[in-house]
Amino acid sequence: MPWYQLSDPKDPRLDELARQYNLHPLHIEDARSEDEGVKVDSGPNYTFAVFKPVYLTQDPDAPTEQMPVFSTLDVFAGKDFLITIVDPACPATDEALERARRDGDDEHPARLLYLILDTIVDRYFPAIDHFDERIDALEDAVFDSPSPAILSQVFAIKRELIDLRRVLVSMRDACLHLQRDPNTIIDTEHQLYIRDTYDHVVRLLDSVETQRDLLNNTLDIYLSSAANRTNDVMKVLTVLGTIALPALAISGIYGMNLKGLPFEDSPHGALFVCLLMASCTVLLLYILRRMRWF
Amino acid sequence: MPWYQLSDPKDPRLDELARQYNLHPLHIEDARSEDEGVKVDSGPNYTFAVFKPVYLTQDPDAPTEQMPVFSTLDVFAGKDFLITIVDPACPATDEALERARRDGDDEHPARLLYLILDTIVDRYFPAIDHFDERIDALEDAVFDSPSPAILSQVFAIKRELIDLRRVLVSMRDACLHLQRDPNTIIDTEHQLYIRDTYDHVVRLLDSVETQRDLLNNTLDIYLSSAANRTNDVMKVLTVLGTIALPALAISGIYGMNLKGLPFEDSPHGALFVCLLMASCTVLLLYILRRMRWF
Amino acid sequence: MPWYQLSDPKDPRLDELARQYNLHPLHIEDARSEDEGVKVDSGPNYTFAVFKPVYLTQDPDAPTEQMPVFSTLDVFAGKDFLITIVDPACPATDEALERARRDGDDEHPARLLYLILDTIVDRYFPAIDHFDERIDALEDAVFDSPSPAILSQVFAIKRELIDLRRVLVSMRDACLHLQRDPNTIIDTEHQLYIRDTYDHVVRLLDSVETQRDLLNNTLDIYLSSAANRTNDVMKVLTVLGTIALPALAISGIYGMNLKGLPFEDSPHGALFVCLLMASCTVLLLYILRRMRWF
Amino acid sequence: MPWYQLSDPKDPRLDELARQYNLHPLHIEDARSEDEGVKVDSGPNYTFAVFKPVYLTQDPDAPTEQMPVFSTLDVFAGKDFLITIVDPACPATDEALERARRDGDDEHPARLLYLILDTIVDRYFPAIDHFDERIDALEDAVFDSPSPAILSQVFAIKRELIDLRRVLVSMRDACLHLQRDPNTIIDTEHQLYIRDTYDHVVRLLDSVETQRDLLNNTLDIYLSSAANRTNDVMKVLTVLGTIALPALAISGIYGMNLKGLPFEDSPHGALFVCLLMASCTVLLLYILRRMRWF
Amino acid sequence: MPWYQLSDPKDPRLDELARQYNLHPLHIEDARSEDEGVKVDSGPNYTFAVFKPVYLTQDPDAPTEQMPVFSTLDVFAGKDFLITIVDPACPATDEALERARRDGDDEHPARLLYLILDTIVDRYFPAIDHFDERIDALEDAVFDSPSPAILSQVFAIKRELIDLRRVLVSMRDACLHLQRDPNTIIDTEHQLYIRDTYDHVVRLLDSVETQRDLLNNTLDIYLSSAANRTNDVMKVLTVLGTIALPALAISGIYGMNLKGLPFEDSPHGALFVCLLMASCTVLLLYILRRMRWF
Repeated sequence: MPWYQLSDPKDPRLDELARQYNLHPLHIEDARSEDEGVKVDSGPNYTFAVFKPVYLTQDPDAPTEQMPVFSTLDVFAGKDFLITIVDPACPATDEALERARRDGDDEHPARLLYLILDTIVDRYFPAIDHFDERIDALEDAVFDSPSPAILSQVFAIKRELIDLRRVLVSMRDACLHLQRDPNTIIDTEHQLYIRDTYDHVVRLLDSVETQRDLLNNTLDIYLSSAANRTNDVMKVLTVLGTIALPALAISGIYGMNLKGLPFEDSPHGALFVCLLMASCTVLLLYILRRMRWF
Repeated sequence: MPWYQLSDPKDPRLDELARQYNLHPLHIEDARSEDEGVKVDSGPNYTFAVFKPVYLTQDPDAPTEQMPVFSTLDVFAGKDFLITIVDPACPATDEALERARRDGDDEHPARLLYLILDTIVDRYFPAIDHFDERIDALEDAVFDSPSPAILSQVFAIKRELIDLRRVLVSMRDACLHLQRDPNTIIDTEHQLYIRDTYDHVVRLLDSVETQRDLLNNTLDIYLSSAANRTNDVMKVLTVLGTIALPALAISGIYGMNLKGLPFEDSPHGALFVCLLMASCTVLLLYILRRMRWF
Repeated sequence: MPWYQLSDPKDPRLDELARQYNLHPLHIEDARSEDEGVKVDSGPNYTFAVFKPVYLTQDPDAPTEQMPVFSTLDVFAGKDFLITIVDPACPATDEALERARRDGDDEHPARLLYLILDTIVDRYFPAIDHFDERIDALEDAVFDSPSPAILSQVFAIKRELIDLRRVLVSMRDACLHLQRDPNTIIDTEHQLYIRDTYDHVVRLLDSVETQRDLLNNTLDIYLSSAANRTNDVMKVLTVLGTIALPALAISGIYGMNLKGLPFEDSPHGALFVCLLMASCTVLLLYILRRMRWF
Repeated sequence: MPWYQLSDPKDPRLDELARQYNLHPLHIEDARSEDEGVKVDSGPNYTFAVFKPVYLTQDPDAPTEQMPVFSTLDVFAGKDFLITIVDPACPATDEALERARRDGDDEHPARLLYLILDTIVDRYFPAIDHFDERIDALEDAVFDSPSPAILSQVFAIKRELIDLRRVLVSMRDACLHLQRDPNTIIDTEHQLYIRDTYDHVVRLLDSVETQRDLLNNTLDIYLSSAANRTNDVMKVLTVLGTIALPALAISGIYGMNLKGLPFEDSPHGALFVCLLMASCTVLLLYILRRMRWF
Repeated sequence: MPWYQLSDPKDPRLDELARQYNLHPLHIEDARSEDEGVKVDSGPNYTFAVFKPVYLTQDPDAPTEQMPVFSTLDVFAGKDFLITIVDPACPATDEALERARRDGDDEHPARLLYLILDTIVDRYFPAIDHFDERIDALEDAVFDSPSPAILSQVFAIKRELIDLRRVLVSMRDACLHLQRDPNTIIDTEHQLYIRDTYDHVVRLLDSVETQRDLLNNTLDIYLSSAANRTNDVMKVLTVLGTIALPALAISGIYGMNLKGLPFEDSPHGALFVCLLMASCTVLLLYILRRMRWF
């Protein structure tokens, strides 16, 4: 059984293969489209699949972080032929094709398709785990010292999770299609394998949902920390005002050009009045503490 | 096969056609209604469809921005006739009819209907991409300088996305109907094409959902920035208060008409006391910094 | 075919009709209950329906505004009889019965039932449009001058939309029941008409959802405006504090009964010191502006 | 037909009945469990049902308020026997059994089961209405004088609604089961009655959802009132600061031990300067009002 | 019937058993995977199940609290053999195996599987109750003295509930699978038992949902308390400012080196002026109270 391995959908050999194996023009168009999504479509004599392998690469905006990047892999799996169109720069695709070559055999295109899909799905786990670590680190950081930089990372991860979730939902639908469509190339023997892969995708989606919940928690923590901090700053202001108030009011009164104030002629007048100020301040602080302002 | 191209649903020729081809009065009423929604309805001898083509036009409220506008296109696709009622001012409709005339042929009304629908759906992609760019710009802006003007744009886009989503949901239902209804004019050969169009609409809806998520992120960023900013302003107030407090309290005390304060007769008394004020301020700032207020 | 038009469910003629046409006691009980909801129930020889016509009336709490009010309309539609129990004060019910008398005929109770239902549903559109206008006005107002009065209107409309949505959901279910229940009085010819009415109810529900989204937007705008305003008031406080600070601190220092301050014997001392105060204020304002506090 | 009325699931007579009528051990275990939930389970020769009657009692935390309390009622309804296990302290159960004895007859256990269920469901309406009144009162109160005490009541009602909703959802599932399970004791004649009860439960659930929405509105009103109030308090602070500022700054300047200030030797100097202070204050207040701070 | 009890999936005896009973390689791989999830998979001659027993252990971060920990239990239940792979350190697993040995018999692997599953599900109830107590305590605490420490506990419990919910959802799916899959080892007699267990899992999930609602309430209470507290602190500041204002302004005026103020030569001038200050303060406080600031 021939396996045609193309590395560019623009390759004119694809047109020849389309004529030879009677590939549907819509599928060729999809394979050549710039922003095709994950899909599986089964016709009478072959199954056409678009998968999105993922790999981690260095984030250009944050050199110490990695970010997931998606490439595209098109498969035409017929009963007696296999055509793959891959992005040669993607390590997940490489691994998938190597495993298919090693563990599959030419007589079973269904097995080859399963091996490729399963490897691609397995490569999502490190991408998800990568987020787990970053979210844990962010949650710790947001309790210790909430800062806008943390927030900006929270929103960056949220955005990446939105993309990841979108791809995983369509991967799940693709697995469902491979199990249920009566035209699909996947035979009964491999249905169980595809269902296992399907379970993996569902688990991945579950993890993404959990991570979204955790990020929302982190956001709530941040916002409640900000509210706390506002309160704390307000209390410092209040305490400062409380300390200053008696000193200002009493010294103002004694600064008036008027007669009739106590101690005005005493040689230790200033001492007595300063003690009075201090007592008033202590009394005010004591009242505030009793009323539980701090 | 005759193709009747009307440009006004009020046209009396529609009444003649209704008599000739036995069109249902409810469909004529729908075609003539002011605010008809997207729908597909298949009777025994024809399929009636209302589509909403979209095109970008200059936003009257914000001259530098474009906004999507919907027009209406009614199709009566029978086995041996096609009636289209279009808004001639809509470029998306123009394109759809041109492509139908060029790529379709008169013997296959199903193909003509597909070509019109597919072109209309394809024209949604630039409208969505347009929002992608604006949302990216807003997200950058909200981090740099959150302002009420940005917020007002966020809410304007939210409102436009609500409309867009509503039309896309009914376009998706229309595509489903064309695939599944046993009475529909779409034959088996074109089912696959309609499913491809359906996939496009689902992808568009997915993008709109993602954009709503991103706008909510932007809103969260804005609100958390506002909370941050309140805190920062409070801290400036606290620091100003801290700087002023010792100066005010100590100068108040030395302004009292009382005796017994240190340095009161020293020729450099003012200098000593000012140094004392400065030390108190520095000490207070140091304590606040240790307590991590700023 | 007799059509019995009652205007009070307590009317003893209903008991006679119940005996004559074998009406189910549960339906009589429902028709006489104070707070019956929309429902459709089809028995072997008749269909019982409760609808909720809506009409706009002056809001007692806000004399310049109108508010939707629901009345109740019960129908027993048998193959050879029609019983309607209506609230004679409701203009929507009046219109529905008039249209049924004008456009229907006595031989088709299904047509009469459709005409009544369709008119009732059509009368929901002005109620919804009424909210559209009020929400638009509120959204403009909240940007211009957010005030608690606007908020209170937002919540009042939210409350009315909750009621409206509840009635529309049960109207939608009633339409579905009329289409699908095999016992229903609606014959195949009128199924298409009922489906058209069903589409209208779905469109109405869609509008209510959109209006809820828009009200939530308005609420978000209000809350973010409040946050903005807090910040702005804080900044005014900060600026006032900044203007006052040097004057207070320096004049305090010069008010001390101490010797050794510069300019203390100069005839223009006050002028020099006031210039010093003004310079300090300008410097502080300049620093704050550089740090982008206002 | 015998009807065994037990008032304690621990009663050893239940074991005898279990042997006599071949009751499933799991059902006996459920009936005796401390925290059994609502359920309906139909076996070949009887239907086992657990219902949760509700009654209002005085709230121990708020003596002026009532709160709903749930009791438990177990029914074993066989073709030729009925066993009920009730909490004798619950008035709703009392009423249900009385109505069953009065309106039912011994030959129709399905009718007895329906009568018991219907009475129990009817007793939920006053519990729901009770919340309606409290929520209305809270909403009025939150507009007039938002206080933490109101908030604490909002959360208390939310908590009670969570419980109520949970019981109602399982009551709805129980009604569905009684309608659909082919083994159920409910015969065709009583299906319509059970569906009527089902409609009541759905209406109750609908009311609970509406009340949750209204409570969330109340919470939103509270929070936006708090934000408003913060702004208002800030404005009072700002206005106080504005009134004080010129007096403090100018009197500070005139309190300096320096020469060269205008009016310093005038006999009406104090008057002139006080007029100056008042003018500055009025000017500042005028500026703030123009800038719409209050 | 042999029952093989392994305590380590790496055990080479598993390979022998796999050969002997023809176990599917995917199931062996799942049993040996590090982070397998709950699943049930039925093949032609055996049912493979992975369960997650739960037990409470001391929380390393909060020594006074307990936290739920999940272990893993794999079961291969064939018609004539049973293989269990358990974590010997888990008390819930211990209990499950003991109950299976005591109440089950070797001839019915379905009964053994049910007994193990039922015991595992029963052990979730104390874990849930444990959260009930902690949430109640937190809710009381958040009303009495909202602090960031409480918040951090709220988020910790939220996180644990996310995990718990995830496991329970897959346990529910596993129970459904055991009931519905035609290949499953569970015979008709035990279907009722499994449905009872399913009901328990649904009740557990319901409790987790309720607890999430309650935690969200607690969070809302916390945030609204913070907003309240900000207002209260602001009011204290305002009252302090109000008390100080007349004293500062009037004493400032009397401190000016100017002539023409009333009482300036009176021997009781200070007394009169102090009384004036006090009156102004009382008047201001009275005005604020009338305007309901405190």
